[in-house]
Amino acid sequence: MKPCDFNYSLRVRLKKEESFFGPGVAQLLRLVDQTGSLQTAAATMQMSYSKAWKIIRIAEKELGFSMMERHVGGAGGGSSQLTALGRDFVDRYESFQRDVYDVADKLFEKYFLTDCENGVRE
Amino acid sequence: MKPCDFNYSLRVRLKKEESFFGPGVAQLLRLVDQTGSLQTAAATMQMSYSKAWKIIRIAEKELGFSMMERHVGGAGGGSSQLTALGRDFVDRYESFQRDVYDVADKLFEKYFLTDCENGVRE
Repeated sequence: MKPCDFNYSLRVRLKKEESFFGPGVAQLLRLVDQTGSLQTAAATMQMSYSKAWKIIRIAEKELGFSMMERHVGGAGGGSSQLTALGRDFVDRYESFQRDVYDVADKLFEKYFLTDCENGVRE
Repeated sequence: MKPCDFNYSLRVRLKKEESFFGPGVAQLLRLVDQTGSLQTAAATMQMSYSKAWKIIRIAEKELGFSMMERHVGGAGGGSSQLTALGRDFVDRYESFQRDVYDVADKLFEKYFLTDCENGVRE
């Protein structure tokens, strides 16, 4: 019996000709939703503000709607929040990703963990 | 109604600390199986022979068994073929990948194609 000493990784992206929405921008938008700040969201992911801004713009352009609204000014220096369409889209992507992972876990078990030593991944 | 004008992409890899087996090496090994030649297999994928050799070596090292046997010499300048374990492993990876895609197709439909114009992907 061989030991079960490897795992799998899986990445889901949405694309037209090019990818425009993946785990990074989804996490970023979720963090904007939670923190009310694109700057905080980007910093949390150790991503530059300009890159954060750019990947959201690309997604919005391809999807044809705004995902995030900025409220400029005020005591805190402005804030950002998701639009209803933006939040709904992030929800869908996260659900899609989660369900794919759930099934992939079971399939990985079926194909790779049935004849090894402990039957569980490291 | 919005048009259904995007699709998804998905990549499945096997990993320990690092990825060691993905779509590229799987396709390469399948081509070795079909052509009996690593050189032909690599050329078909527009991959250098040395890279082809390297990615197979990495997979073999991580898995702890040989996936390919070389038969040196002879009129045709030698040939390569998969070991039984190698072929079995490629079979499993392809089945894993295919089943993940099948389910992901259905999930993509569920989450992204239910409220758009034609209900089918481009």
